[in-house]
Amino acid sequence: MSDLLIKNCKILQTGASRTAILPQHDIFVRGNRIEAIQPTGQADESHFRMVIDAKGMLAMPGLINTHSHVPMVIFRGLAEDVSIEKWFNDYMWPLESNLQAEDVYWGMQLGLAEMIEAGVTTVADHYFYMDEAAQAVEKAGTRALLGWAMFSSNGLEMIEKTGEFVQRWQNAANGRIRTIMAPHAPYTCDDEFLRASAKKAAELGVGIHIHASEEMGQTRASLEKRGLTPIQVLQQTGILDLPVILAHGCGLLPEDIELLSRYPTGVACAPKTYLKLAMGMTPVTELRQAGVAVGLATDGAVSNNTLDIFESLRLMAMLQKDRHGSPEVMTIPEALNIATRGSATVMGMADQIGALEPGYLADIILVDLNGMHHQPLHSITASLVYNTRASDVQTVIVDGKIVMKDRELLTLDKAEIVAQVQRSMERLAQRQPNRRIQVYNP
Amino acid sequence: MSDLLIKNCKILQTGASRTAILPQHDIFVRGNRIEAIQPTGQADESHFRMVIDAKGMLAMPGLINTHSHVPMVIFRGLAEDVSIEKWFNDYMWPLESNLQAEDVYWGMQLGLAEMIEAGVTTVADHYFYMDEAAQAVEKAGTRALLGWAMFSSNGLEMIEKTGEFVQRWQNAANGRIRTIMAPHAPYTCDDEFLRASAKKAAELGVGIHIHASEEMGQTRASLEKRGLTPIQVLQQTGILDLPVILAHGCGLLPEDIELLSRYPTGVACAPKTYLKLAMGMTPVTELRQAGVAVGLATDGAVSNNTLDIFESLRLMAMLQKDRHGSPEVMTIPEALNIATRGSATVMGMADQIGALEPGYLADIILVDLNGMHHQPLHSITASLVYNTRASDVQTVIVDGKIVMKDRELLTLDKAEIVAQVQRSMERLAQRQPNRRIQVYNP
Repeated sequence: MSDLLIKNCKILQTGASRTAILPQHDIFVRGNRIEAIQPTGQADESHFRMVIDAKGMLAMPGLINTHSHVPMVIFRGLAEDVSIEKWFNDYMWPLESNLQAEDVYWGMQLGLAEMIEAGVTTVADHYFYMDEAAQAVEKAGTRALLGWAMFSSNGLEMIEKTGEFVQRWQNAANGRIRTIMAPHAPYTCDDEFLRASAKKAAELGVGIHIHASEEMGQTRASLEKRGLTPIQVLQQTGILDLPVILAHGCGLLPEDIELLSRYPTGVACAPKTYLKLAMGMTPVTELRQAGVAVGLATDGAVSNNTLDIFESLRLMAMLQKDRHGSPEVMTIPEALNIATRGSATVMGMADQIGALEPGYLADIILVDLNGMHHQPLHSITASLVYNTRASDVQTVIVDGKIVMKDRELLTLDKAEIVAQVQRSMERLAQRQPNRRIQVYNP
Repeated sequence: MSDLLIKNCKILQTGASRTAILPQHDIFVRGNRIEAIQPTGQADESHFRMVIDAKGMLAMPGLINTHSHVPMVIFRGLAEDVSIEKWFNDYMWPLESNLQAEDVYWGMQLGLAEMIEAGVTTVADHYFYMDEAAQAVEKAGTRALLGWAMFSSNGLEMIEKTGEFVQRWQNAANGRIRTIMAPHAPYTCDDEFLRASAKKAAELGVGIHIHASEEMGQTRASLEKRGLTPIQVLQQTGILDLPVILAHGCGLLPEDIELLSRYPTGVACAPKTYLKLAMGMTPVTELRQAGVAVGLATDGAVSNNTLDIFESLRLMAMLQKDRHGSPEVMTIPEALNIATRGSATVMGMADQIGALEPGYLADIILVDLNGMHHQPLHSITASLVYNTRASDVQTVIVDGKIVMKDRELLTLDKAEIVAQVQRSMERLAQRQPNRRIQVYNP
């Protein structure tokens, strides 16, 4: 007896430079894994506990958000049209001084609901009060890699504290929850703190999720202050020896890219944030050419302002063409490869998620390409990159379980989440003079 | 007796540098115009033939697409990841040699259906077989400014022919259809043809819709070949003396902007096309500073690949920040002003559409901002620019008539349109050697 049969769908398969669409196939799910994929018509439906008829749908791997601060959705819309310095010092860091544990619990649920509705099944989250974030993931039924953000100003004891969080939640929720150490950035964590973070991560057998070289100004400031790029700082403090998710990298120099190619680092690209904050752009093409994995991300909703990986995919692809002055750069197969296998590699899960193949975890989304904005469907893959909206995602399966069916969430209560979040809007929106959790001065 | 009461909605009002949201108001519609706007609670519902309860919705002016080739939706997805030269010479212009009148009829309906679903109520369309396009607009119930595209190679008699189209359809469908002369571009129309087009347009009392300075390569080529920018060519041939919709302008020089500021020209900005084809970007901020009206556009779906003005709005705003290296450029109020009054001005209809005010045409969309990707709604205007998806548009009213209610199209038959369009997919996708409608060699 298998658990789930998804029948009658087209299936997206992504390779390094080519993409295939299997026509009319079935996906067999046993437990939390894909057991088999075969042409429709051979399955005995009585052998499955549940059958989904996915006629007219495209099945693809659940989308992966390789860098976010999901609970920040509670602040969205509160910091618009301001410089990156003001964004941190006058808005975000003052606002975050209002944060309480229960805000994270409800904010995480809100963001997870938004992501499920957009086909995002896995997220690398980097925030505060992460026990509450983990509880929300447990409830939502999705997959997450959670790191408790920390700064030098928290003191070295914070490394112990977040290390305990790592141990508490590693492989919880049937393995859906994994953990990571999350020092904030080289400009908010001094070398001693970075070294101690790396040591703790190695001791616990986990990786590091960190912001670095977010934009070129940071790189220049680091070079001026100490003669090292932020990436060289990460190397010297031992961070790069670990599996690292490096967020943004819009300020990477060619020598940084060469350096990263020698370490197990993946880079998270969140293009909408970079446009909105005029940060430049991750050198995606150059990183890939150097052999560095790149994944898609949204960053937090105060810069993005949504958590929509289809939008990140589209923007990333178009902006590579734009940056290189060539429409031939970042082809549709390469963009889809980044969105699936690239992001899975950044998460350290290349053999577990990001592909629909036997043995992979059953994180599957069904996308409806029948809308007027897709028709006539001359190219399914072009439509996936350039036409697909979050609202085209119909059904979402994570770890073999259905979390959204025909756009109805099965694990989260939207009305309750919205009510809870709206209750705190006024308190959360207050900005008090000189009350901030950090100062931005890279 | 009035015709329609839209009660209980928030209303977006856009000024040049600020935006207001009226809370809980009613919109009274008489005939095809807005009669009054007042706080909810004062209307006698028995005085209205129809009442829409828009509780929880935001009412805003119907979106305007200031430059498209709508029927090109039938080719979407057929020209990806190729240079602009190949896009024209190896894809688009060979593909368009397959075009038949009925393709335009069904393609226009498909594109109009997509646009209605995305809240677009008015389009400036520049294509072929425009009688069929006009029939589709008549049926859809939307508003359009239609121009029959022409090249020098069609001969001067084409100007007469498309002039007849102009006269045939001007102010048809209760004024919903207006017409314009549409010479393709300075690089496909010689000076004699441009002069004759301008003369005919003046004679007919209509404007000109033309591509020019689409990217910097065209400007350079024009300067090399004849010592004039494409904009100077338009000036010398008398085109600029007329009301002009100028598509793209990514190759505008500072002197072109100064020149345009002295003429009744508006510029249509279709940012997604520019990214996909690496064309640069319309200098929106500079044009506005010089007093030139700018509107939002999608261009055709073979470059875009959708007809989504919310996406154009978001991209335009973000890319101005990116281009100027400053998040403070192109604020939310200015972006919304461009999307509403700016686009209306480009269409030559600044006193008719693009605002919800008494006396304006009743082109109104109701947008649902209750989705998880908007919550909590700290800023309605931020959500409109950065969070809103086409799928958030619930109800669409054009010329006082409802064309979409709760996402159900009332004027067009989606199943029939898709069936008709799919029937011709194979024929339309053929590319035959040396069969093309033009050659791109600016």
